[in-house]
Amino acid sequence: MSIQMYGFWRSIASFRVRVALNLKDLAFEEIPIDILSGEQFESGYAAVNAERVVPTFIHDGHSVFQSLAIIEYLDEIHPSPRLIPLDAKERAYARSLALMTIADGHPLVTPRVRNHLAKSFGADAHAVEAWGKHWTAEGLATYERLLAHRAPAPFALGAEPGLADICIAGHVVTAQYVKLDLNSYPVVARLAERCFAIPAFATSHPFEQPGYKVASKQ
Amino acid sequence: MSIQMYGFWRSIASFRVRVALNLKDLAFEEIPIDILSGEQFESGYAAVNAERVVPTFIHDGHSVFQSLAIIEYLDEIHPSPRLIPLDAKERAYARSLALMTIADGHPLVTPRVRNHLAKSFGADAHAVEAWGKHWTAEGLATYERLLAHRAPAPFALGAEPGLADICIAGHVVTAQYVKLDLNSYPVVARLAERCFAIPAFATSHPFEQPGYKVASKQ
Repeated sequence: MSIQMYGFWRSIASFRVRVALNLKDLAFEEIPIDILSGEQFESGYAAVNAERVVPTFIHDGHSVFQSLAIIEYLDEIHPSPRLIPLDAKERAYARSLALMTIADGHPLVTPRVRNHLAKSFGADAHAVEAWGKHWTAEGLATYERLLAHRAPAPFALGAEPGLADICIAGHVVTAQYVKLDLNSYPVVARLAERCFAIPAFATSHPFEQPGYKVASKQ
Repeated sequence: MSIQMYGFWRSIASFRVRVALNLKDLAFEEIPIDILSGEQFESGYAAVNAERVVPTFIHDGHSVFQSLAIIEYLDEIHPSPRLIPLDAKERAYARSLALMTIADGHPLVTPRVRNHLAKSFGADAHAVEAWGKHWTAEGLATYERLLAHRAPAPFALGAEPGLADICIAGHVVTAQYVKLDLNSYPVVARLAERCFAIPAFATSHPFEQPGYKVASKQ
């Protein structure tokens, strides 16, 4: 099985797919697309992904985009270990937790949105950071409330990490970006700690990617 | 099977679930939560949905939230007619199309975001409308580009409407809200026309809900 992923070190959606691939122990080649400099809008990449976003996942020449669609696809073609449980109610719970950041929190803090805030409302760096902090804190608070109803044991759905943990860990990385501390969200903080103690999560962290190391030296 | 949905006439996520239930010919009771007046933040609803969003789907007392998680759950517990195909590649394509609006376009134009733009940047009604038009047009253009690669035949994935069509139709309703015409997006426009010719879509349209009829008389 040949797998390529067009991704970016800072992209949380790329992080999610990276963790999924690493948890399943699947080798892949990551091709960097610098979404901060706008490389996704260049014609070469537009031919790869008509939405002009990362990640794009290529499996034996077949391409899939949108991180949740990619992780579901991976779980279907390579179910071991399962990231989404088999039971319908448990699957729904895993997807609900995932979508809270994929469909609610994270879309509000992507580079295209930050750029458009600056362009539309003259938002400066401070105002854009405050915007990011607001939505990221909302998401953390929601996860904290939800996990209070069903405590992680020790991961969101049970003994093994899966889709929900990947998405919550990604939200915690966003919190690191906007310099939010997790003191008010102890259940989320403990869950993220357990995740990042696992090599598949730790090595997928944006700050562990080659692109970050280059960017941080500039 | 007893089904309730906490929803709101104007909510695009509620529209998606309503269409899915109607396509599957499942009877349900819709309980209105007025997200424009902030009813979702009242304590009664907070106990129903810790994220304080609509829709919440209740099946024999078990609750599921997030529209995509609800539709996937419905397709698993009541697979006829299927809204998500069985083939892994086709499933991935359906989910990719769905997530373009669920995870990219729609989260940017919800009431909580519009309110926060006004509060953070002093955006007036005109600026908030321009913001909504921008992101909705981006989504329409992306769908138009994608559907150019694989023409609807006649629905996004083939002969029968499913998850992708539901999500694209919801994006078109958002375009109606922000008064964007579809002249530049002929493939999307034709797909939406085919969808709304089906009673399950037509009767689920926000403007066909009792709450709209009350609101538009005020």
